[in-house]
Amino acid sequence: MNLKQVFSVVSILLFIIALFMLFPVVFALIYEEWPALKAFLLTQGTILILAAIVRGICRNHEDDRISTRDGFFLVSLAWLLAGIFGALPFFLSGAIPSFADAFFESASGFTTTGASILTNIEGLPKSILFWRSLTHWLGGMGIVVLTVAVLPFLGIGGIQILKAEAPGPTLDKLTPKIATTAKALWFIYLGLTILEILLLCLGGMNLFDSMTHTFGTMATGGFSPKNTSVAFYRSPFIDTVITVFMLLAGMNFLLYFRLLTGKIRDVLRNTEIKAYLGIFFAATLGITWALMKNGSYSGFRECFRYAGFQAASILTTTGFVTADYELWPAFAQILLFVLMFIGGCAGSTGGGMKVIRLVTLFKQGINEMKYLAFPRGVFTFHIDGRAVRKTYVYNVMGFVFLYLVLLLLATMVTAFSGEDIATSLSTALVTLGNIGPGFGSVGPTKNYADYPAYLKWFLSFIMITGRLEVYTVLILFTPRFWKR
Amino acid sequence: MNLKQVFSVVSILLFIIALFMLFPVVFALIYEEWPALKAFLLTQGTILILAAIVRGICRNHEDDRISTRDGFFLVSLAWLLAGIFGALPFFLSGAIPSFADAFFESASGFTTTGASILTNIEGLPKSILFWRSLTHWLGGMGIVVLTVAVLPFLGIGGIQILKAEAPGPTLDKLTPKIATTAKALWFIYLGLTILEILLLCLGGMNLFDSMTHTFGTMATGGFSPKNTSVAFYRSPFIDTVITVFMLLAGMNFLLYFRLLTGKIRDVLRNTEIKAYLGIFFAATLGITWALMKNGSYSGFRECFRYAGFQAASILTTTGFVTADYELWPAFAQILLFVLMFIGGCAGSTGGGMKVIRLVTLFKQGINEMKYLAFPRGVFTFHIDGRAVRKTYVYNVMGFVFLYLVLLLLATMVTAFSGEDIATSLSTALVTLGNIGPGFGSVGPTKNYADYPAYLKWFLSFIMITGRLEVYTVLILFTPRFWKR
Repeated sequence: MNLKQVFSVVSILLFIIALFMLFPVVFALIYEEWPALKAFLLTQGTILILAAIVRGICRNHEDDRISTRDGFFLVSLAWLLAGIFGALPFFLSGAIPSFADAFFESASGFTTTGASILTNIEGLPKSILFWRSLTHWLGGMGIVVLTVAVLPFLGIGGIQILKAEAPGPTLDKLTPKIATTAKALWFIYLGLTILEILLLCLGGMNLFDSMTHTFGTMATGGFSPKNTSVAFYRSPFIDTVITVFMLLAGMNFLLYFRLLTGKIRDVLRNTEIKAYLGIFFAATLGITWALMKNGSYSGFRECFRYAGFQAASILTTTGFVTADYELWPAFAQILLFVLMFIGGCAGSTGGGMKVIRLVTLFKQGINEMKYLAFPRGVFTFHIDGRAVRKTYVYNVMGFVFLYLVLLLLATMVTAFSGEDIATSLSTALVTLGNIGPGFGSVGPTKNYADYPAYLKWFLSFIMITGRLEVYTVLILFTPRFWKR
Repeated sequence: MNLKQVFSVVSILLFIIALFMLFPVVFALIYEEWPALKAFLLTQGTILILAAIVRGICRNHEDDRISTRDGFFLVSLAWLLAGIFGALPFFLSGAIPSFADAFFESASGFTTTGASILTNIEGLPKSILFWRSLTHWLGGMGIVVLTVAVLPFLGIGGIQILKAEAPGPTLDKLTPKIATTAKALWFIYLGLTILEILLLCLGGMNLFDSMTHTFGTMATGGFSPKNTSVAFYRSPFIDTVITVFMLLAGMNFLLYFRLLTGKIRDVLRNTEIKAYLGIFFAATLGITWALMKNGSYSGFRECFRYAGFQAASILTTTGFVTADYELWPAFAQILLFVLMFIGGCAGSTGGGMKVIRLVTLFKQGINEMKYLAFPRGVFTFHIDGRAVRKTYVYNVMGFVFLYLVLLLLATMVTAFSGEDIATSLSTALVTLGNIGPGFGSVGPTKNYADYPAYLKWFLSFIMITGRLEVYTVLILFTPRFWKR
């Protein structure tokens, strides 16, 4: 383990976080929020001193290679420390008096979960709310991907980091130069962000709300500066813009890169995107039908709007809310519940198990049925027009099973605190899948405030594990990982 | 497709069912239950006439081979027809006035699920109740395995049937002669049945109750002739006997065969049995702890007894009840909920996904983590002391995924009727896993009576699909199966 190099990279990441804290500092100055300003400056100062110390200890050593193993450790550590230092402004400003709560909120932000312990969001200082949403945006595309785009300038290669970080299994390498890719992805992310901010402003939101909601959308996070989330605006235009951008954020960003380079055929034969949109429309139509039958809203258009928003919000693991879906008919609720198992596309900012993994398993299941009927046949299945290798299927299956094991574990730990089955299971689903709101005690009109502190710590860990594709964190707990 | 041969075998199966109806006929005569008697005789007559017609059409044809494909069709058809003809006595005697209800009860019996639509069980004629429990016993070890033991005498080989029927994947062949094996399994089943009847009589149950409860236990079914299930007796001795025999019924019957032939080492190194008992004791201790903390019962012994009974009942997919576990603390409920996903051992009468499949997936998941940390390493894992082949892992993974897909489908269809998430999900779990009682509207003190007819038909189909290891039934729905 090249610990010096690992800490060196992590200190750069923290430095970047401190840099981004300049935005809320500006808001604190504008709105004259002195306790918040003090908290931000104190956090920045702490990070700078620590980073300087680490750089002092770690510089001038010759071995700057990072092995795959180092990568896993680095990424996990980065997210943990981002959670801790991101929590400091919440805690030091007094906005969130308990550190367990502050860490939960910060981890929820950086993992783009959007689960909140805040009961009165609108009562907080603007600068704190901005920082809260900014953690989404930073976490969204991955601080580490950002680092991959920045580090090469510092002479440090980042291939191994991308391997551990890039959300979901992607079958191709895009461009040989990792740094170029990372930069391209980052600019796409930035471009979409600016576009959404403009559209939301056009829809009547002020700049502050537009920015914070855009951060929540593009990161598939879900933090809103409003107590009632997006429901606050009651605007069909805003709902539509956010629905579309949630769906865009849940798609594989490499596909945008392809589109920009004119490779439209690659996009058209992408299996995952078809399944993703298919699932979205099927769920939306199902929910729309249930809402219309129930007479929940007036007419098809309104039902479709609420259904589409919530389906996109849950499928992409964003977690914005325009309606109290717990008042919806059971069938609509179950469809949302099912979406909680799926998640966005690989290579997106979305969480969950990822569409491509479930498509792989489904095709594998069909394949096995063919073998049963024709034991001597030879059957393969295709993804993106290519035959799928067995090692890939193995990897997917191992992942899904570990995901389900973690889901059961999180369900049990939540139930341990006395919550019922629907609450416990959905808490596990929406934290591991980085969604945010669930059912029961963590339903769309409620929050995580009343959970005991140990559960908040545990769920923070689950959020980070889910965000880092389970393996990345779990591997640190195997004795073999630490051998030699 | 050798349809003549398939129908010929199915008619023999129905004939056997008619033969076993002589037992309830005796009870009807003893207790002078004339409408029930008429219903049984009418059913028997119908079966005999139909069987004679089929035999007349199908005899004297030369090709008596049954292909693997024929086997899948045969087994599915056998269970469907057993459900239909088994329902006739319920329906014709007027005991269950709706045929959807009668079929549900019969399918629940033959699939050893134990889900009931009866609201006042004790009000039914004894002969009907006996038949209800007997369907468990017949379904338990598999009418088809019975057929495998009988058919060879009729000059018909049954290897393909066993392949489709034998519950769960077993890694070995036991003895080359399938018929010998089937007979041995059958006698073990009979021996354990007689032993349990004797023990329950010793515990103070009358012969009728002992027999019916034993049928429910050995088949891991769960039908009880009492409204309050086993809770009726409030006897530590009876609870213990049933707990032990549920656990025995949930183990691989081939292991008993091994024990009888002195191959103790094979039993000791059986991975599944260790995991199975490990899961049982872990869950029992967890529930015991929760019950003690909550003060639900007086002292450790009583808590342990209730916890052990319910854990064994759910894990083995029996579904007997000695307590209203919905009144237990949330943590205890969640543990039962988790057990609902697991099921018994392969080669037992238990349903569910089977312990061995989950053990395989777990080991595969761990293996994948090793590959992530050491991409160039070569890692294998062992079950029963032997390295596991990849084709086996593939099969298991395909199965588990299709199982989960069916689970979601059943959850959605149940929710469609207006049930909440916990009810819908647990209904899907306990029908597909052949357990019986779940949570919410199908909780331990409730039943399936209030579900709409279409849902009862659908859940009957789910029970049969779950009982026949999913693939067997689903394969019939693939166009490729019916080609050529």
